[in-house]
This record gives sequence, C-alpha cells and structure tokens, in this order.
Amino acid sequence: MNLSKYLAVAAAAISVTFTAAAQQEIRSAALSGPVISDNGTVTLSITAPEAKQVSLQLDGRPDTLLSRGDKGQWSFTATLAPDVYRYLFVVDGVPTLDPNNVYTMRDVSVVKNLLVVDNAERTMPMAFHDVPHGSVTTAWYDSPAAGCKRRLSVYTPPGYEFSSASYPVLYLLHGSGGDETAWLEQGFVAQILDNLIAQGKARPMIVVMPNGHIDTPSAAMPMAQPKFEHQRWMEGSFEQSFPDIIAYIEKAYRVRTDKHSRAIAGLSMGGFHSLFISANNPDLFDFVGLFSAATTPRRNADAPFYSNIDAKLKAQAERHPALYWIAIGRDDFLYDENVKLRHKLDSLGMKYQYTESDGGHIWANWRHYLQEFVTQLF
Amino acid sequence: MNLSKYLAVAAAAISVTFTAAAQQEIRSAALSGPVISDNGTVTLSITAPEAKQVSLQLDGRPDTLLSRGDKGQWSFTATLAPDVYRYLFVVDGVPTLDPNNVYTMRDVSVVKNLLVVDNAERTMPMAFHDVPHGSVTTAWYDSPAAGCKRRLSVYTPPGYEFSSASYPVLYLLHGSGGDETAWLEQGFVAQILDNLIAQGKARPMIVVMPNGHIDTPSAAMPMAQPKFEHQRWMEGSFEQSFPDIIAYIEKAYRVRTDKHSRAIAGLSMGGFHSLFISANNPDLFDFVGLFSAATTPRRNADAPFYSNIDAKLKAQAERHPALYWIAIGRDDFLYDENVKLRHKLDSLGMKYQYTESDGGHIWANWRHYLQEFVTQLF
Repeated sequence: MNLSKYLAVAAAAISVTFTAAAQQEIRSAALSGPVISDNGTVTLSITAPEAKQVSLQLDGRPDTLLSRGDKGQWSFTATLAPDVYRYLFVVDGVPTLDPNNVYTMRDVSVVKNLLVVDNAERTMPMAFHDVPHGSVTTAWYDSPAAGCKRRLSVYTPPGYEFSSASYPVLYLLHGSGGDETAWLEQGFVAQILDNLIAQGKARPMIVVMPNGHIDTPSAAMPMAQPKFEHQRWMEGSFEQSFPDIIAYIEKAYRVRTDKHSRAIAGLSMGGFHSLFISANNPDLFDFVGLFSAATTPRRNADAPFYSNIDAKLKAQAERHPALYWIAIGRDDFLYDENVKLRHKLDSLGMKYQYTESDGGHIWANWRHYLQEFVTQLF
Repeated sequence: MNLSKYLAVAAAAISVTFTAAAQQEIRSAALSGPVISDNGTVTLSITAPEAKQVSLQLDGRPDTLLSRGDKGQWSFTATLAPDVYRYLFVVDGVPTLDPNNVYTMRDVSVVKNLLVVDNAERTMPMAFHDVPHGSVTTAWYDSPAAGCKRRLSVYTPPGYEFSSASYPVLYLLHGSGGDETAWLEQGFVAQILDNLIAQGKARPMIVVMPNGHIDTPSAAMPMAQPKFEHQRWMEGSFEQSFPDIIAYIEKAYRVRTDKHSRAIAGLSMGGFHSLFISANNPDLFDFVGLFSAATTPRRNADAPFYSNIDAKLKAQAERHPALYWIAIGRDDFLYDENVKLRHKLDSLGMKYQYTESDGGHIWANWRHYLQEFVTQLF
C-alpha cells in the first residue's frame, strides 16, 4: 500500500494503528467501550457468541450473571453514582478484560477495566479539569539502608518549576498490595491535588510516594516473572530506611525542612508505616494520617523499631502534633484494631481527629480520606 | 477476620491483595504468567476448559491455533530471541488478555500482554540494570498556539537533580497511533538512555516527548469514552505550535540553547513532523532523525508549513546539519516513499546517513533506531 492509499484509508478510519507484527496492519478501531449517558446510566457489554455463561464483577456490586442478546452480546445496564469503578467480565470461567476499553487498573496481581462515571457538571475530583496542573516525576534514590537504588514518585504542585519558593511535603504511603505507582494510578493524587489547590482548599505541596516493599526496588517492568510476593514486608526494614527518602527529597527538591512542613500518611500497611515511622521520629512530622491502617506488627516481627511503641507514642503525644488523623470504614476488617488503637491513644494522651465512613477496605474510601486530610495540612 | 488471622493467612500466601469491592478479599495469587527458561524457551498458556478454539497473536509470528491440553489449558511453546514481545489470546473469537500476566502494552486502541525475553547475560537494553537512573516527568505546558494546556514527558539524565550543568535536548516524537507515553512505554526510552549513558555510548541528554495530536491535550484518563480519532492530524497545527514546547523546556529545565544542542527525531508521523519542523526552522536543530518516516503531507493538507518544502530543505542543507539520519525497514509500507525522499535529498544536496533494517513498521525497529541515533548526538 502506498502512502496516498494509506492516508486515504486512514482519513476515513476512526482510528489507525500500526501493530508491531511482522506485517503492517491498518486497523479501524471504533471502540465501543462503556456507554455512559449524561444521567449516569452505564452499559457494559462484551460480544461472545460462543459463550455459555458470562458474569460481571463491578466495584460495589455483587457479581452479576449477564443474559445473552440476539447477536451474542452480553450486557449490563445500571445507573451509577459519579465515581471511579473497576469491572471485569468472566467468560466461561476465563477472566476477560473488555476488548473495547483500553483503560485498566492494576491492584497487585488483579487487573480490571477502568470506568469513570462523572456527573453532568463534570466536577469529579479525580478528573483533569482545566486548572493549572502539577508535574509527576518518577525518580530513583540511593538507599544505603536498603542497599540498593529504589524508585519513588513525586508530585510537584503547579508552578513549582518557575518558582523559587520552598514547599511543604506530604509523604504518602501505599498498602501491602501497592507500589510507588498505586497512589497515582488508583488514588488519582495528581488530579485531586490539582483540583483542591485550584479551589484554594489545599496548600501547594509536594507529595512523595515511595515504594514500601523493601525487597522490591520498584514496580518497573520485570525481566521475567512478575514478582508480587514480598518476603520482607512489615518487618521494620522499610520503616528503618525512611530517612534515606527524606534525605533524597530534601536534597533534590526545594522543600521546607521544619517539622510543621512535613506530613506522613498511608493506607492499610502504609498507615502502619506512618504510625511507626512518626512515633519513632517524633520530631520529624507534625501531621500524621492513618487511613484504614493496620496497627500492630506481624507475628515474629521483632525489629527494635516496633518495640516500646506505647512509650514512643506517649513521647510523640507530648510534642502535640498539629494533626493526628484516623479514618476507617465501618465494614473494614481492620475496624476493631482501630478501636483498640484509639483506646490506646486516649490512654496515652494523644489527641487525634477521627473520621468513620461507610464501606470497607477500598480505594473509594482512601481517595476520600486523602481529600479530607490534605485540606488540613500545613 | 481479625488482624492476626489476616496476617497468618497473608504470611502463608504468595501474594496478598485487597480488591476494591464492597467486601474485603484476601487473595492468594501465584501468577503463572509466561514461563521463560534461561535458554529463551517461552511457554504462553491460558486455561479455558469450555473454549472450542483458542489462537495466539504473538509479535513476529503468524497467528497460531493452539491445541487443548487435558485440563483445558491451551499452550504455545517456542524459543524466542531476546527482545520485547506483545501477545494476545483469542478465545472463541473474544480477544483475551492473559489473566496470569498483569503487564500490558497499549498501542492506540490495541492492548496486548507484554513479554520480555532476556538472554542469560541479562544484557537487554530495555531493562533497568544496576546503573544510575534518570528521572521521568510528566508535565503540562501552556500552548498559546494550540489554545490549551498540553502534557509532555521528559527524561532527565542521571544526576540532573544534583548538577548545575545544562544539557542538550532530543525532541522525540511518536507516530500517528501514539501519545506522550508511547516512547516511554513502548520505546523504553528511560532504560535505553540509562544503559547507553552508563556505557559511555551516549552523552547525558534530556529527552522531550510531547503529544503530537493537537486535538488531544494528553493521554491522561478520559472522563467518558476513550478518544482515539484525531480530526486534525498531519494538518500543520502541531508542527506550527512546536516553538511553544521548546519555550517551555528552555524555561523549565537547565538546557543548552544552541543549535548544536538540539536534536529532533520521530517515528512514522513523528518522522514526518521532524522532517517538516526542522526544514521550517533550519537554525533550530543540528540533528534530525527520521525513523520509518511518513514523508509527504496528507491530501488537502495545505498548511503554509508544508509548502515550498524543496526550497526549505535546500536552505537547511546549505546550513550543513551535523547529522541527518534516515532509517527504515525493507518491509515497511513507507519504504518507497523513503526512496523518493532520499532521491530528493540527493538532488537538493542534503547529506544524510541511511540505515536499512529488516522488518517493517514496528517498535522493535524503532527501539533499535533510537539506540543507533542517540549514540551519534551532541
């Protein structure tokens, strides 16, 4: 095919792609994807004429068996509240991503399709609106304590590149299933911060998202098998190495280095990290956020970092942190642990703010907690 | 489930994940994924007991029908040369990503699984080796010419953050199917540059990867339907707006601003962009790279930017660019166009280097061209 012919085809096609096969392919790909009406009615469908059974997994709903249409199309329609959802079809037992939706979200070893339902006003806090945008950088820092280079993600607020100002820093930690991409890709940190800063609801800040698995330098592409098993999680090494991260950030970025300009928060395992890192370093952080936090070390985790936690928390309480913030869902399996933690903090004289939400151990909650937390910082 | 029970389960499991469903799930996910032996023998498989027919699309091979094993497992085994491959199963007509491989690669509207086959020495240029790493930033620049904020990706070389030096810049442009993420995710620019710089084969440089579709601010998550149709591609607007990108980079980064410190290169449509942008701005770039380039404007594309190209190329030739580099595969559908381009350049007195490779219009070629090109820059 010569170029003129190619261009004529391409101009007519809705989408053109060259696939990386030995031969060229010019492909018209009018992706049907999820169909979303302005009132939030969503139709998800997959064409599988040979299938005997198709079910749908959709966040916030029980798994649903779909019924077959005339032409082998299996569909689901419902009205959904504005939010970010994940979904996955199961076709005759085979987990099957929507061939007509290229957007996916990975949570550890589970990949599902992404579905964004906005409202008519297009006010979704997780969307890129027409406001000044911050930048997101993935960088590698040297961790002498971990003995390797490790990757982290950094959000810098709009205008950072053209300012000479120094900024406060939120260290934001993922859960046991995450990595340095989790808060960006599942937590929509850049969009949430852009929008809150534009509204004047959050101060311009830098957000640092390290990788909390000390045995994994990064979520970068592996050379062979994906590696999701972590032998060394919640055993103290990552927490112990945390000053390497602060040292890198305070050298590589224009940041304020006083206690009142540092916050640490995290979800689940990241909440656990935040609890212990801040208690072991009571002069480092003036703001602490525990989102659906694990609160007690694993069995056999006997790192000195974890010992004498009551005395450490008491010493931290005596320094009167500007904000010690706890949030959890009523259905969270860590709910009881958090009740115990609050009783302990009460007995040690630690003042905290407490938010209880609906739902369980889910990203929808963590995105909301993040929004509540960052508006109270610095 | 209380935390102790949870931790006991988690410790025993190979992988633990909290899914974002209403209820918590603790899931052991020992992903089988692709099985790759040290000699490069790869087994790809999918379990689909109910399926009547399963085929495999694998880069560099014709589509292959798989045969069914005892337990409904459909497998493919072959020895593959070290490289990066994409694959996709088709189960009874439904394109199906490998449920046991979380790594995928998107090329416009086509998503396939990623497969990396390294050699025993682990010398893959696309891998993260234990060398100093650069950083990758996604940032938004204001484009008065385009009338909106637009996103781009920037690779800064190892040590940029801690240096006061200024660096040369390669502007690296994607094809009609790509966006500002294409060269990073499919071209592995960060890894390739890290490795070549560590070997002393490429100079430390900044690589800027803008979005070449003027009607799309970015590849960022859309709020409704994915949008891959481009009404305004190769009609001159992006090329015309290019100085906005240079202005942003030269303000936001420590870069050298002389002609000998600027290169522009691109693949396919990006090669076309590079050809016309450099010819229209003969004093801006001392290095030009055309990888499998489209060479002639679309029909009805009558932008002044495209007119009098012969005179513009002649004026550029008279300025003796340090390197005008052309590469294409013998099987590329743009091969004949590139023969004509070379004849034209010969007649206009433009000196160029020419590399002809096997294969066609594929990322494997573009990754190799990038390696050849960057070692000759600055």
